[in-house]
Amino acid sequence: VAERRLAVVDLGSNSFRLVVFTAHSRGWWKRTDEIYETVRIGEGLGATGRLSEAPIDRALHTIEVFAHFCRASGVRNVRIVATSAIRDAANGPDFVARAEAVSGLPVRVLSIQQEARYGYLAAVNSTTLRNGAVLDIGGGSVQLVRVQGRLGREARSWPLGAVRMTERFLPDVRATKKQIKALRAHVRACLAEAEWLPAAGERGELVGVGGSVRNLAAAAQRTADDAFPGIQGFTLTRGALDDLVDRLARRPASKRALPGIKAGRADVILAAAVVLQTVLDQAGFVSVRATEEGLREGVFFEDYLGPKEPPLFDDVRAASVRNLATQYQDSLEHPERVVRLAAELWDELADAGLHPGDPEERELLRAAALLHDIGMAVDYDDHHKHSKYLVLNAGLPGFEPREVALIALMARYHRKGDPGPDELGPLLHRGDGARLRRAAAVLRVVEQLERARDGTVHDVRVAARNGRVELGLEADDDVTVARWAVLRQGGELFARAFGRELVVG
Amino acid sequence: VAERRLAVVDLGSNSFRLVVFTAHSRGWWKRTDEIYETVRIGEGLGATGRLSEAPIDRALHTIEVFAHFCRASGVRNVRIVATSAIRDAANGPDFVARAEAVSGLPVRVLSIQQEARYGYLAAVNSTTLRNGAVLDIGGGSVQLVRVQGRLGREARSWPLGAVRMTERFLPDVRATKKQIKALRAHVRACLAEAEWLPAAGERGELVGVGGSVRNLAAAAQRTADDAFPGIQGFTLTRGALDDLVDRLARRPASKRALPGIKAGRADVILAAAVVLQTVLDQAGFVSVRATEEGLREGVFFEDYLGPKEPPLFDDVRAASVRNLATQYQDSLEHPERVVRLAAELWDELADAGLHPGDPEERELLRAAALLHDIGMAVDYDDHHKHSKYLVLNAGLPGFEPREVALIALMARYHRKGDPGPDELGPLLHRGDGARLRRAAAVLRVVEQLERARDGTVHDVRVAARNGRVELGLEADDDVTVARWAVLRQGGELFARAFGRELVVG
Repeated sequence: VAERRLAVVDLGSNSFRLVVFTAHSRGWWKRTDEIYETVRIGEGLGATGRLSEAPIDRALHTIEVFAHFCRASGVRNVRIVATSAIRDAANGPDFVARAEAVSGLPVRVLSIQQEARYGYLAAVNSTTLRNGAVLDIGGGSVQLVRVQGRLGREARSWPLGAVRMTERFLPDVRATKKQIKALRAHVRACLAEAEWLPAAGERGELVGVGGSVRNLAAAAQRTADDAFPGIQGFTLTRGALDDLVDRLARRPASKRALPGIKAGRADVILAAAVVLQTVLDQAGFVSVRATEEGLREGVFFEDYLGPKEPPLFDDVRAASVRNLATQYQDSLEHPERVVRLAAELWDELADAGLHPGDPEERELLRAAALLHDIGMAVDYDDHHKHSKYLVLNAGLPGFEPREVALIALMARYHRKGDPGPDELGPLLHRGDGARLRRAAAVLRVVEQLERARDGTVHDVRVAARNGRVELGLEADDDVTVARWAVLRQGGELFARAFGRELVVG
Repeated sequence: VAERRLAVVDLGSNSFRLVVFTAHSRGWWKRTDEIYETVRIGEGLGATGRLSEAPIDRALHTIEVFAHFCRASGVRNVRIVATSAIRDAANGPDFVARAEAVSGLPVRVLSIQQEARYGYLAAVNSTTLRNGAVLDIGGGSVQLVRVQGRLGREARSWPLGAVRMTERFLPDVRATKKQIKALRAHVRACLAEAEWLPAAGERGELVGVGGSVRNLAAAAQRTADDAFPGIQGFTLTRGALDDLVDRLARRPASKRALPGIKAGRADVILAAAVVLQTVLDQAGFVSVRATEEGLREGVFFEDYLGPKEPPLFDDVRAASVRNLATQYQDSLEHPERVVRLAAELWDELADAGLHPGDPEERELLRAAALLHDIGMAVDYDDHHKHSKYLVLNAGLPGFEPREVALIALMARYHRKGDPGPDELGPLLHRGDGARLRRAAAVLRVVEQLERARDGTVHDVRVAARNGRVELGLEADDDVTVARWAVLRQGGELFARAFGRELVVG
């Protein structure tokens, strides 16, 4: 049992943030600590081109605290990276030298290309993006990276960040139509330099990185329902974005913190929304997918997945399901058997014509099968409910909120109950009730076959005849417990899901 | 890292149940598996005095399944105990021989004294009972154990179980006043044999074991609010019990499953409630405290705490707080420092006249301090909320629901937010809002002192002067991080809780 901890310190224009990532030898990683300070190192930079004395003092004090924190908490691997404000300031190198002296740690000033690459790594490692682009809207700058076959192909950066655009185009309490139009025209003119952009939009999707996109996604999500499992993977459609821009533009700057938008971001969110709108326009994307991960995760992935180049998970969904499964379970023997048997039973039922055999449903079922018991880490009683709680709260990068909700509910119903319509919020699609019930029924039967968690039953066969489903068990050993358990608990939900009585052959 | 698993199989009159307890070398224990079958071995026993063939067949099949389950899941320590139905039946010994042959495991038929002792062990190990009595209402019989100084002194059993009393006194769809009166008179006459009972009631409290008491407690709890953290430690008052008896008696037997009462128990719950009422009357108890634990936990405790005699935790509350803390945390170094510093700061603030210094509040604060970070086992983000979830869901035997809720909320607010009045449900007492806010404020300051979790600050002193509270830190090492963290996050809630500004001296 060994843990490796890495602290990533991000010296951003607005805030300095330290995040500790822990990677465990059992195969999981997660964030385990985070501190930040709103330093505003970029204060006054626009006017003078230099970092000013007061922000420098705040910054050096914060860096000192962060360095103490790393020493005190025993984190020896520390990566400090600085972005646009420090990169752009005339006295940036001088500041970096002082920061290194104060902390005793090297400070790496990222080039535009390097910064864009970390955003790209975060986006591709937390979504299913294959082709399209990654957009990172910061305070000072905006980065766009073209993605083809999951590889970053071209990267551009423009000084179109939310703070900068607000100061230049929307400085007043009220934003006029004319001002917004001027901002749009400016962004459009800049983006024209990326000649590949329309092609990326035509055949790909856009992933948005950074707090502004997250807040806009959260605001769009809140208008629909409150019980969504976070904005990771959420699709913000062009229509919803247009609505948000209209609502934000009608309000004075101080009142733009709609539900989902943080108070400290209210004054710059309109500019960010207009920039985002213009990127969609220019490239022809119909939506943008939000991700929680960004620069700091990119730095972590380089460390965690390197020397692999590029440092990408082969399969983001599989990696994130496995990450949760190993976090909460010492051994995956039982859950992996449930994955295999559940897929086998589901396939057999599809072959027998008892359901459509939708591959997305199969993938969600397999994820739920690996995660169905993680709630045991909370308590044995109601562990199916705790599994739902853990999936919803820890999240599954690579899946959309709707898919995460379905996986969580499949795990929830692997043991007891029948999913009623009230469980299915507005995020679910037509047919999801039937998908959920089928998957839960399959999981429940398989869980009973594995009731003693011993792998006795190694294969299942299905024969649909005489209006019933006969379940054949292939086992090396006695199946007393499996048979008893299926007869006792597996049949009822199965009959409701597939309209057939289940008998064990 | 070693785990010891023990399966306790309870062959009860109504159902057979197998529970697996896991005890971990790091110091925690919990239930990790449970299967049951509603065997009704006692069916027909009343009429013939013998176990009948059909129930015997069901019972032997179930025992076979349970034995297979233990072998398949690798649980080698198995304790099978049988209670009243098998003990009382003329052919009980014959059944036991067949059960042993089928399972290959010894079956122990508990004497009345042994059965009562396990109920007593469960009650005293899951509550703060010192003096009074433990009442166990089963289907066939009722046990009473007198408790003095936590020791079981006298045990009695009567054939006053809920099923038996229903059959004899309340066999009809409607229960008449006359029937209820006759039942009460019968119970009273039996209980008169326990001459010590009035003395126990005068200077002690009553703890109730078994499903009937749990269901009655749950029903009483539901009428007040739905968000209670379970019935463990819940006080069912005489008034609430009288109300329940009235409501149940007005309904036909099939409609007595009030919220909180399980459908399978609806037909016998009125008899159980009247028996309980009569015990309170006879002894002069003003209420009964419910516990989730019972016979099976008693058997486990004997194994877990033995050879200590009697096998009791020295301090139930401390044991259960530590049990949760070690379940979710590999090391208690940081939480234990938070306990010590929080108690020290709280004491200093009391000495300075800034709060009343209520010892119960101090105990809850210490519990919350050991548990404040357990939510990190779920996820770093919102881990304060996850700590609340874990405390509420896993529970803390030895504390009342109100106390568990307060501990959970203290942990919830150790990091962010200000407890508003809507957090405080109807279970909380007058002044709990202030208690919660004080404890949360103290925890938050101490958590910031321990922000790097390194023990730099080893003592705190408080001086209240000039309308401010000056916090003095005693440390061997540099306190840069602690000072920064307290100034940044500790002060606001502190000022609201104590009406004074906090400064770090």
